[in-house]
Amino acid sequence: TQIPEQNDLNLTHLKGRCPEDFDLLSIIGEGSYATVYLGKYKTSGKLYAVKVLDKRHMVREGKAKYAAVEKEALRKLSPHPYIVRLYYTFQDTYKLYFVLGYAKNGELLYYIRKLGSFGLDCVKFYSAELILAMEYMHSKGIVHRDIKPENLLLCENMHLILADFGTAKIISLVQDDSPLGRVSSFVGTADYVSPELLNYKRTSISSDLWALGCIIYQLIAGWPPFRGGTDYLTFQKVSNLDYTIPDGFPEEAADLIKQILVLDPQQRLGSNSRGGYENLKGHIFFEEVLWEQLHETTPPELKPYLPLADGPR
Amino acid sequence: TQIPEQNDLNLTHLKGRCPEDFDLLSIIGEGSYATVYLGKYKTSGKLYAVKVLDKRHMVREGKAKYAAVEKEALRKLSPHPYIVRLYYTFQDTYKLYFVLGYAKNGELLYYIRKLGSFGLDCVKFYSAELILAMEYMHSKGIVHRDIKPENLLLCENMHLILADFGTAKIISLVQDDSPLGRVSSFVGTADYVSPELLNYKRTSISSDLWALGCIIYQLIAGWPPFRGGTDYLTFQKVSNLDYTIPDGFPEEAADLIKQILVLDPQQRLGSNSRGGYENLKGHIFFEEVLWEQLHETTPPELKPYLPLADGPR
Ligand SMILES: Nc1ncnc2c1ncn2[C@@H]1O[C@H](COP(=O)(O)OP(=O)(O)OP(=O)(O)O)[C@@H](O)[C@H]1O
Ligand SMILES: Nc1ncnc2c1ncn2[C@@H]1O[C@H](COP(=O)(O)OP(=O)(O)OP(=O)(O)O)[C@@H](O)[C@H]1O
Repeated sequence: TQIPEQNDLNLTHLKGRCPEDFDLLSIIGEGSYATVYLGKYKTSGKLYAVKVLDKRHMVREGKAKYAAVEKEALRKLSPHPYIVRLYYTFQDTYKLYFVLGYAKNGELLYYIRKLGSFGLDCVKFYSAELILAMEYMHSKGIVHRDIKPENLLLCENMHLILADFGTAKIISLVQDDSPLGRVSSFVGTADYVSPELLNYKRTSISSDLWALGCIIYQLIAGWPPFRGGTDYLTFQKVSNLDYTIPDGFPEEAADLIKQILVLDPQQRLGSNSRGGYENLKGHIFFEEVLWEQLHETTPPELKPYLPLADGPR
Repeated sequence: TQIPEQNDLNLTHLKGRCPEDFDLLSIIGEGSYATVYLGKYKTSGKLYAVKVLDKRHMVREGKAKYAAVEKEALRKLSPHPYIVRLYYTFQDTYKLYFVLGYAKNGELLYYIRKLGSFGLDCVKFYSAELILAMEYMHSKGIVHRDIKPENLLLCENMHLILADFGTAKIISLVQDDSPLGRVSSFVGTADYVSPELLNYKRTSISSDLWALGCIIYQLIAGWPPFRGGTDYLTFQKVSNLDYTIPDGFPEEAADLIKQILVLDPQQRLGSNSRGGYENLKGHIFFEEVLWEQLHETTPPELKPYLPLADGPR
């Protein structure tokens, strides 16, 4: 059985497919509105991840637009080495089907759970791949809004793949950095528009940067920076920027995180007003990263970060 | 011919109506996606405003959801004395119809243009009515997002009616002030959620407050606080809080405006963190306003504000 390459550009071989063209072999993931199957395309024997959404369930819960957004976002983004590849979508009476590139090595979360934390070379590698995925996605005017270790998948050769665009937001159709690009669609006159609406685009991109900061912290520390006993307590910690850098945390990583986890969205490293992705990628923590060749590099072996973690838990 | 009262609670008399039940007498307004007609209900002779939307045009421009949002917002809000009343909606192959209460005296903008500015008693009266409309709307979790003098209509007896909910945002289905109310719908885990997302609800309500500040300023000064030669220049002024209080501007109004036109959405007078509507209504500028009886009061006669304006232009 073959797994098609993420960056295989030939879309046409799957045109006009239907549910009967696939054998759904096993369930590989379950979300709130979707079941994801390992699916074999009968004719070629190739493997895909087939995400199946229940129409009635989504409509009943008012989530029908999530499927539309996911499709539109993936259409705009795919193919790209770090974004889950959308091959085809089709439907029958009750279900929507998304045929996706299969990320054979599953969720990054699994390795975080297994190892507790990652060695610094792994942290640098995977956060760099995530940054490249985000840079590309944001350049296309798409904000993910739910970046977390469950949605960071690993392909067969252990490169990162960003998945689950069901909660994405498509910010602008044109690639336009002027405030007009964002607001012209619904503001008849500019006179009454609030400053935060003008800043909306930059702000919402920065929400993904916040998640990046949380994930880099977690990969090193073994736990996320903000975690209360309940969601409510977690939210309070987030609102108060109430987190600590543990002893033994590498200084350059601490500096990076301090510059990303900033309450004001526009003051986060990586946001446009802080020099954008160039500045983020130029941080000393990423000094050794060969950004251009990352996808051709063999990923470093996953090992725990020893100065902090008690080893695998 | 009769105009039904805004607060007439009897919805049933219009149940199950269709386009043929109305004579469309004349066009009373035209928006980007809608034409608004004066419509006479044939059986009773009563007058309504019939907003007609072109389905294909909306779908083509990706604005179909605007109609759905307008309907949902009006359903949640109506009837209320200061919110345009939705009597009925129906459709035929090409068009959607909203049968609305008819605001016989048209747009507040017309009077601003005619008078240049309003006498202080009128400013207080109409801004107080707008505040009551906003307080109610926000208490129902709905943000208007396009409050401007074109959307402030006047009914037959010259009370204010807030209209055009096509760009509204329905923030929460439950009346819930906890951050969970907002984010639980799309955040699987709280660990990676950014602080601005937690503050989203309060922030977006504050965008309407900003518009209120602009309108109060305009009613007194005769022109809006931020206006550049182009939208882009206007946006720059907004972002830099670049406005001036003209000489002769009443001090209490200036103080009110300074407290509303604040860049940080949460620091605006009227926002939850600034004491909410109670604080706003308690500002000295509104000292003489009888909030409880406003709708039973006869509106003050519309006259220009003399210390500033050159009279009617
Ligand atoms: N392309 C893929 N390759 C391998 N596994 C996948 C793929 N897509 C999804 N999965 C698995 O299925 C799980 C659920 O998928 P996904 O997150 O897209 O669904 P969802 O319903 O949108 O989830 P959520 O409720 O977290 O938003 C993923 O976390 C992952 O484990
Ligand atoms: N209930 C009403 N009574 C009287 N006039 C009305 C009423 N509703 C709308 N109008 C008139 O029609 C105009 C356009 O209506 P509305 O703003 O609802 O349409 P729109 O297409 O959503 O406009 P926009 O393009 O400004 O968003 C209003 O500015 C007003 O002049």
